[in-house]
Amino acid sequence: MTNGAVLAKGGVERVGLEDSFMTHKPANKKPFSIVTDIPDHSVGISMVVHALCDPDHGVIKDVNEIKAVGHRVLIGGENYKESVLVDDAVKRDIEICFELGPLHNPANLKGIVSVEKLIPGVPQVAVFDTSFHQTMPDYAYMYALPYEYYEKYKVRKYGFHGTSHKFVSAKAAKLIGKEAKDLKIISCHLGNGASVTAIKDGKSVDTSMGFTPVDGLMMGTRTGSVDPSAVLYIVNKEHLSVDQVSTLINKRSGVLGISEISPDMRDLETAAAKGNDKAILALKMYAYRVKRFIGSYIAALNGLDLLIFTGGIGENDFNMRKMICSDMESLGIIFDEEVNNGSRGQDLIISKPESRVTVMSVTTDEEYVIASDTLAIVEHHKVLN
Amino acid sequence: MTNGAVLAKGGVERVGLEDSFMTHKPANKKPFSIVTDIPDHSVGISMVVHALCDPDHGVIKDVNEIKAVGHRVLIGGENYKESVLVDDAVKRDIEICFELGPLHNPANLKGIVSVEKLIPGVPQVAVFDTSFHQTMPDYAYMYALPYEYYEKYKVRKYGFHGTSHKFVSAKAAKLIGKEAKDLKIISCHLGNGASVTAIKDGKSVDTSMGFTPVDGLMMGTRTGSVDPSAVLYIVNKEHLSVDQVSTLINKRSGVLGISEISPDMRDLETAAAKGNDKAILALKMYAYRVKRFIGSYIAALNGLDLLIFTGGIGENDFNMRKMICSDMESLGIIFDEEVNNGSRGQDLIISKPESRVTVMSVTTDEEYVIASDTLAIVEHHKVLN
Repeated sequence: MTNGAVLAKGGVERVGLEDSFMTHKPANKKPFSIVTDIPDHSVGISMVVHALCDPDHGVIKDVNEIKAVGHRVLIGGENYKESVLVDDAVKRDIEICFELGPLHNPANLKGIVSVEKLIPGVPQVAVFDTSFHQTMPDYAYMYALPYEYYEKYKVRKYGFHGTSHKFVSAKAAKLIGKEAKDLKIISCHLGNGASVTAIKDGKSVDTSMGFTPVDGLMMGTRTGSVDPSAVLYIVNKEHLSVDQVSTLINKRSGVLGISEISPDMRDLETAAAKGNDKAILALKMYAYRVKRFIGSYIAALNGLDLLIFTGGIGENDFNMRKMICSDMESLGIIFDEEVNNGSRGQDLIISKPESRVTVMSVTTDEEYVIASDTLAIVEHHKVLN
Repeated sequence: MTNGAVLAKGGVERVGLEDSFMTHKPANKKPFSIVTDIPDHSVGISMVVHALCDPDHGVIKDVNEIKAVGHRVLIGGENYKESVLVDDAVKRDIEICFELGPLHNPANLKGIVSVEKLIPGVPQVAVFDTSFHQTMPDYAYMYALPYEYYEKYKVRKYGFHGTSHKFVSAKAAKLIGKEAKDLKIISCHLGNGASVTAIKDGKSVDTSMGFTPVDGLMMGTRTGSVDPSAVLYIVNKEHLSVDQVSTLINKRSGVLGISEISPDMRDLETAAAKGNDKAILALKMYAYRVKRFIGSYIAALNGLDLLIFTGGIGENDFNMRKMICSDMESLGIIFDEEVNNGSRGQDLIISKPESRVTVMSVTTDEEYVIASDTLAIVEHHKVLN
């Protein structure tokens, strides 16, 4: 961690499903992947630890070299404004939030418990996707639903992608020789999920995802903001159950739902180039929604210094960046089409020198934030002990 | 209609409920109201016609002086880009849209049929609340829901308050010696219902209300845009039926839901002045949402010349106008607090002379649009015959 070098990268996918597999990519050795039955997260994490210690492909001698483990956790609720050393109370709070993040929080807790068993006594840190957004003011995070549901069920906007928004806003500011705390920043994390965040004094003041990651922008398969009565109308017409509604707004909508082709922008751009009307419509809708969110956050911030694009689409899809940033001169955004054109996965200023707003594409690195938060918290904890 | 003078104003309220009543206010005679059993719309309209012909309070001698009748109709669907002479096909289309506007369209049709019976042969005109918004581009009116629901059920954004947005944009432009077609305009109709519209070349290019009037801004009792998953979560927790969900988002949310006091801004401002936290929160939320919509439409329009406030709140609530327009200098809005302060129900420029955007409060008059559309269509029709 002294120089932030990555020793190994990897992942376990399709846990509990057919064709589950693990990939392991050490920095200076041969990568490998194993396709095997991975019935649960404990087995998956055990495979990761073994891969790290493997004599041929591993990067450490044995498990005792692991001094701390950091976990990304989807929702920490209102109690966690920053990353935290995991203890029983933290585990309980992650469990309390199962209902708010049913697809993620249970897996996150399983990961923590599995590591406890595999490497007893190792300190673990939880890095919440929501904590960066805990600085939002109440008038931004409250929904105009009856107040009692906030009191009873904590229904409010939490926001997600916090780790990424925090990382790229600090990184982009540094790249232009400034600090995030001195700038008005809007960061657009556009990937499978997508969210826009307004950042003032280095703090999140509003973000487009809400109570769940469905809210806000149109995404690969998620609808984003929609008239709740429109959903209700479809429920009535199609006699959908609560689970079917959840599938509708999470898995069947967004770019996929409109294009009827794919949730992947690359597939859409191929289809659009061939003149497919629905693909063209989906691209226009996607860009227009990001554009409108940028405008709305310029109003919230009363200005803008730095506009950031990150995530798979934000870093690589220069056509989408162009669609979003075109015709925004009145908001101080003078886009540099030439510099932008063809740029993928780079840290780059893509506005013209005379642009009042600096526009950048910046690569994100959530794992780095998790690692550095983990180091900082473990060291702080040792000092206190 | 040659000089647009109002001969009489009036209304029938609580039709079919207890304590139903009719009010009648002739221009130069004594007004009166009748509290009586008004079981349906036919009886109500018959009372209106009798009041108009009443020897003491009336403004015309007999029913034959009525040469045409104009109706406000909530939804015309995608077929009506402007007001239209009512015939059987139009009546059928209004009926087809019953499901989209269950609280309004059936009553609108009843009104038309009642007039047919009372004044046989009189030409009638339907003025749709949605038609001004039929110029929106597809990427603005489509929701990121599966495309099939647009094809099957016409689920899309329609927008409402069209008559008012059209009227005030033309009126405000004229008041500053210009024409709407030469300006970028955002009009905020803030009343019990509330919507913001972006207008370019005199045409609506986007609006905040959607498939139904629930969408967009926070309103008196409506939630406006909300994470659909948040609604789903509450449905699950509280075991709500479809009807109860409709009541939740239409009647129990918005300003009333947050303040737990009233849907009326005046009650909130009284409570807020006494330090009531929830009233203060509701006011801040309301203003913040309008502010963000203005920003988002500046992005959509790539600029703004004229910002208009109308409707009960927009025309009268100078505190709310101030909350919305404060700290908007970066968007070219330099608000004139002094001129704004205390101004109610006036046509007034409330920005400073150096403001790039002209901000105005403008009184709306939907009845005038209905009357003049009716006259124009009836005269056009006579020419064609």
